[in-house]
Amino acid sequence: MTSDTRGAAGLSSSTAVATSSRSAALTSLLGIRLPLIQAPLAGVQGSRLAIEVSRAGGLGSLPAALLNAETLRSELTALRDMGLPYQVNFFAHTPPAPDDARETRWRERLAPYYAEFGIDPATIQPGAVRQPFTEAIADLVEPFRPPVVSFHFGLPSPALVERVKRWGAVVLSSATTVDEARWLEAHGVDAVIAQGWEAGGHRGHFLSHDLTLQPGTMALLPQVVDAVKVPVIAAGGIVNAAGIRAALALGAHAVQLGTAFLMCDEATTSQAHRQVLRQPDRHHTTLTNLMTGRPARGIVNRLMREVGALNDVAPEFPNASTALGPLRAKAEAAGSGDFSPLWSGQNFAGLREIGAAALVAELAWAFDRADGAE
Amino acid sequence: MTSDTRGAAGLSSSTAVATSSRSAALTSLLGIRLPLIQAPLAGVQGSRLAIEVSRAGGLGSLPAALLNAETLRSELTALRDMGLPYQVNFFAHTPPAPDDARETRWRERLAPYYAEFGIDPATIQPGAVRQPFTEAIADLVEPFRPPVVSFHFGLPSPALVERVKRWGAVVLSSATTVDEARWLEAHGVDAVIAQGWEAGGHRGHFLSHDLTLQPGTMALLPQVVDAVKVPVIAAGGIVNAAGIRAALALGAHAVQLGTAFLMCDEATTSQAHRQVLRQPDRHHTTLTNLMTGRPARGIVNRLMREVGALNDVAPEFPNASTALGPLRAKAEAAGSGDFSPLWSGQNFAGLREIGAAALVAELAWAFDRADGAE
Repeated sequence: MTSDTRGAAGLSSSTAVATSSRSAALTSLLGIRLPLIQAPLAGVQGSRLAIEVSRAGGLGSLPAALLNAETLRSELTALRDMGLPYQVNFFAHTPPAPDDARETRWRERLAPYYAEFGIDPATIQPGAVRQPFTEAIADLVEPFRPPVVSFHFGLPSPALVERVKRWGAVVLSSATTVDEARWLEAHGVDAVIAQGWEAGGHRGHFLSHDLTLQPGTMALLPQVVDAVKVPVIAAGGIVNAAGIRAALALGAHAVQLGTAFLMCDEATTSQAHRQVLRQPDRHHTTLTNLMTGRPARGIVNRLMREVGALNDVAPEFPNASTALGPLRAKAEAAGSGDFSPLWSGQNFAGLREIGAAALVAELAWAFDRADGAE
Repeated sequence: MTSDTRGAAGLSSSTAVATSSRSAALTSLLGIRLPLIQAPLAGVQGSRLAIEVSRAGGLGSLPAALLNAETLRSELTALRDMGLPYQVNFFAHTPPAPDDARETRWRERLAPYYAEFGIDPATIQPGAVRQPFTEAIADLVEPFRPPVVSFHFGLPSPALVERVKRWGAVVLSSATTVDEARWLEAHGVDAVIAQGWEAGGHRGHFLSHDLTLQPGTMALLPQVVDAVKVPVIAAGGIVNAAGIRAALALGAHAVQLGTAFLMCDEATTSQAHRQVLRQPDRHHTTLTNLMTGRPARGIVNRLMREVGALNDVAPEFPNASTALGPLRAKAEAAGSGDFSPLWSGQNFAGLREIGAAALVAELAWAFDRADGAE
């Protein structure tokens, strides 16, 4: 960044110094060469993608919420054995009390689809697919000493956060508003992920469920940078070098890309999902609570069109997904994403179908001469 | 922009050339020194603000939709006499058929407020406050030969567009989706304004009323730049030099700022509106159709909270505003914006309370060394 002092309207020289030192602090803290984080993409990737990203100089991430104990252990083993920094990501929600009436209502709404696909809903066991971070999971994770632990939907209990920090782990979490960024800083995160409206997958909101509170990245990011003293990681709508440079211009100290990795060779993105991502002109994204019970951004599919993307008929997070499981499986087996969470950010044109390491190498040059990253 | 050719992931050298030539083409077309447009802000500014912006090297704009013939003529006279480029902006909607039932329902919903303020609703004459661009208005405007004419909500009839172009005017309009950008290019606009989710005031959508189709600026802008051959003006969430540099990094050929000018000395923004804008931490924006009948982004106020910001009880655009008029007047007289359209983009922290020319001068340095603007 220039030391030019004319910039009273947005970039003063004091801002420049602060930005620069927070950027350096963040890459040093994360132990990475490039201030580029691969967003944890629950359901469409494991350690294989993360390892490629970390080897290329970024921060690879393992989404843990959908993994059982055995898989989590083997994935963490693979990541530890790599010998490079990585991130493991957990949800920090409070599981809801069982609500039979709501589960019944949901299954009634899905009844025509069960009939269409010849599914007997009585065979579907209720229960949560996604687990929050708990003491038991901390017991499992602790021996691996993951260098970076991130949370979505706020943070777990202060005791659990303290425990993770005692391991020496860097702690991250997402903010969808300035208020959430301030809250996370006050509760001990080492850096805040500013998640803008454009971002795919679950919104990380936790202080309010009002969806209108989350601004677009262009508005949220600079306000978060101004509001907190910890480094800020930009997320939402960033898919290429141009987006990275834009985020850095807005004061980001690092960037987090998710959608950009969905088409990578190492991602386990389904064929149905990939097929839709290849047709940006024919599809658009919106927030839906149907897939899990919490609003998340995905490409509009048949279920969302017919039920309404945001509808209280879906049980609370994470229980909505259970009743959808067999529908999703049947549809995907036929190459259709009609009942699947087709997570994607709003910017999914021109996704690269290449190896993750090659993608990171291509993105790397955005940091060479960008304002704010020096 | 660098001639570096490593940037397959977003900024190739061929993109660089195209960007550069479209930028130069646009400033040349508009006759301005800085690729910076002051967004037309209907209801909160007239020629005085526009003249200051044009004198400082940007493109000042006059919003015409709320002006009667006499005022429009005197404002255009002031702008013409300035001897510099300016823009005059019109709405391109089709006025709805009268709908007494809906008007009645709206007044019934507002009845408790009329009672609270001692207003007799029988005294309120129905009718539209905002006029679309018509042959009659074209007759009035033609003698002034405005150098730039822009439209919101699409374009007027092909015959009217053709007429405006015969004057030698540059024609602009706003796109909220890639589809709308392509449509506008096919229908003869000289440049497209890519209006992202963050933008304040009326969304410019015209091909669909589905609000989820409009992406954030970070996602919309680069997709529009790729989709059309005409120059692209970025709008939505840009309030300072950092935002301008981000937009240029995303491929914008010029930027349009609205909210940034709301607190300028020359704006006629009400005291109630200014007071709310000074407290970004206490307020947020959302889309509402209550104020006019079409979704527009404004700061949440009492009417929006109590009626619901998006509610079909409000008559079609532009008729919703009529029944609100006396409520708004009474509330504003008491220093309150409870019933006023408090238009603002999502990024309204740190607005500058200075003269518009000084603001433009401060913003100008963003173009000095920015990627994409060279």
